[in-house]
Amino acid sequence: MEPRDYRLSEPLKLDCGRELPDVNIRYETAGTLNEDASNAVLITHALSGDAHVCGRHAPEDPKPGWWDNMIGPGKYIDTDKYFVICSNVIGGCSGTTGPRSVDPATGKPYNLNFPVITVRDMVRAQKRLVDHLGIKKLLAVVGGSMGGMQVLQWAVSYPESLKSFIAIATACQFSPQNIAFDWVAREAIKADPDWNNGDYNGDRTPDRGLAAARMLAHITYLSEESLGRKFGRNLQDKQDYDYDFDRDFAVESYLQHQGKRFVERFDADSYFYITRATDYFDLTAETGGNLVKAVKDVTAAGMIVSFSSDWLFPTAQSKRLADALLRNRREVTFCEIKSGYGHDAFLLEVETLGRMVRDFLHHQAEVEK
Amino acid sequence: MEPRDYRLSEPLKLDCGRELPDVNIRYETAGTLNEDASNAVLITHALSGDAHVCGRHAPEDPKPGWWDNMIGPGKYIDTDKYFVICSNVIGGCSGTTGPRSVDPATGKPYNLNFPVITVRDMVRAQKRLVDHLGIKKLLAVVGGSMGGMQVLQWAVSYPESLKSFIAIATACQFSPQNIAFDWVAREAIKADPDWNNGDYNGDRTPDRGLAAARMLAHITYLSEESLGRKFGRNLQDKQDYDYDFDRDFAVESYLQHQGKRFVERFDADSYFYITRATDYFDLTAETGGNLVKAVKDVTAAGMIVSFSSDWLFPTAQSKRLADALLRNRREVTFCEIKSGYGHDAFLLEVETLGRMVRDFLHHQAEVEK
Repeated sequence: MEPRDYRLSEPLKLDCGRELPDVNIRYETAGTLNEDASNAVLITHALSGDAHVCGRHAPEDPKPGWWDNMIGPGKYIDTDKYFVICSNVIGGCSGTTGPRSVDPATGKPYNLNFPVITVRDMVRAQKRLVDHLGIKKLLAVVGGSMGGMQVLQWAVSYPESLKSFIAIATACQFSPQNIAFDWVAREAIKADPDWNNGDYNGDRTPDRGLAAARMLAHITYLSEESLGRKFGRNLQDKQDYDYDFDRDFAVESYLQHQGKRFVERFDADSYFYITRATDYFDLTAETGGNLVKAVKDVTAAGMIVSFSSDWLFPTAQSKRLADALLRNRREVTFCEIKSGYGHDAFLLEVETLGRMVRDFLHHQAEVEK
Repeated sequence: MEPRDYRLSEPLKLDCGRELPDVNIRYETAGTLNEDASNAVLITHALSGDAHVCGRHAPEDPKPGWWDNMIGPGKYIDTDKYFVICSNVIGGCSGTTGPRSVDPATGKPYNLNFPVITVRDMVRAQKRLVDHLGIKKLLAVVGGSMGGMQVLQWAVSYPESLKSFIAIATACQFSPQNIAFDWVAREAIKADPDWNNGDYNGDRTPDRGLAAARMLAHITYLSEESLGRKFGRNLQDKQDYDYDFDRDFAVESYLQHQGKRFVERFDADSYFYITRATDYFDLTAETGGNLVKAVKDVTAAGMIVSFSSDWLFPTAQSKRLADALLRNRREVTFCEIKSGYGHDAFLLEVETLGRMVRDFLHHQAEVEK
């Protein structure tokens, strides 16, 4: 795979009422689009993901794309059969236009002058890319977590443009608990003086605040069980408490490592914009909270998957969604996978999830619709 | 009630190996100690509590003590019958010696030179106070959350000094998930330049970092259910999204308010020391993780109470504790109260909890032992 860029010729109209000019979309593809363009699978990424979904850009790359154990030749999402597309979301920091891009009106980075975007805006940009690639109807849109929100938004916004969807570890709206965690994460970034109200440069970036935000989020991706099993109260390379405030426990060391790694590859302002987009995500916003009504135009067949120990997007929310689709007599498959990994299970339960995804896609590719 | 001070004549030996000189203990009492000093109930407070447990210092005080709906004349813990004592923990910031107290060796505040303290150290200081008050055997030690940890430590460290105990919404050790949340909370404080490695004065205090830490903790005190019921995705005083990063949602407004109120009454360095004490809390540390062995010296009758939606101190941890006491053939009562309030239930389910506490204390006061 290699990264490509598609620059929109027209501005992108956004939910907030503003228009974004000169939007670039960074995307990657794998596999080959067949003659009738009927084998395209769009992958939508989670909060910290990017367009590099599988494979390596160069053989010497230490790591492949973020969902490489799921996608590739002969894998669960088989690129010998399907044409896989993944693009970085708008607001992101991995090639697609975001808050750190240059504002053509000023010649300087947008920073907090970038318009607040929504999950629907992300999907609007993806739709333009899919049109550009000459695909009238996607075989499937597949994603987990925030990627799952995009999947659901696709099914609602462009019912004629996808044959099926797979929404993993997600919900039809962001819960107040999730909004609360996002709020605190952004407060931690704000407390870092290097954030400077979103206006910083390469010399001084708000690493401390962004790391704290990421560590907080990371706790919510794990379960009490997985933390207990992985770390327990084990100390890091020592036998006794140090009686100080440095990392003593293995779990502290792990979090510190996660925070450090994250700031090397992610941007604080993008963190602001993308978390805000998830806060605002609510499929029922325009139907007064009525989910059955909100999904009434969906025509695609859906598979909805949750994980038993995921407390960020609990199974009950997925069930509610499946129920709303059923009440509209839509074709929907729901499964809760038993797992101790918490929300992270959507990237870790590869085999169980993979077989379900493979079989569902195979069936969708076969049926006439 | 009025606050009193007891200054220890001897230094306090601490778990970390250091000694703390000139320790002051701020405490309050309510009711009257009877002639044989057999009606004393020690209340131990939670992370952000203080010695002011009930009543008012002056009639015009806007608010009474933090557990006033539980304790007072004719109330569940009846001060017409019992002599109630509550002291601020060492490391605290409400009268008892803590990191912001003056170090007699330097004439300046300790700040981060204050020794790291443990829950056992808190209890050591309380034991000295109880001795000073002429009480050989407490009728009961009662507390919730971090107060419950002190309760359990009392039962293990001074088995002959209490007749009974009531441990509410707590556990015999702090879980890795809880340690992780504490770590991130302290990281948020560290990210605030006004913290200045613990050395700050009244003009510049790390309000932003401390508020973020409190907001984070506050989310863990509530349940997904209570957040949903109390706030849902309601907006604060508006009909539509603002599409910015200021508070839009009612839950954001609530958190901001909680953070603001907290920094007015609490100190950032105390937050460091007290959270670290909870991190280190593990009754089984000296028995290689064996809880049955850890509680073998307990002789007091115990009541253990958990709340169904408390995910910070889940019921399973309380059950494990009750089970360990039963295996030692100790007298123990366990109850899970069904509640949607999360961890905060220990302060909110006053009626259900209160009646249980009242009856248990009544029984303990009657029985010979």
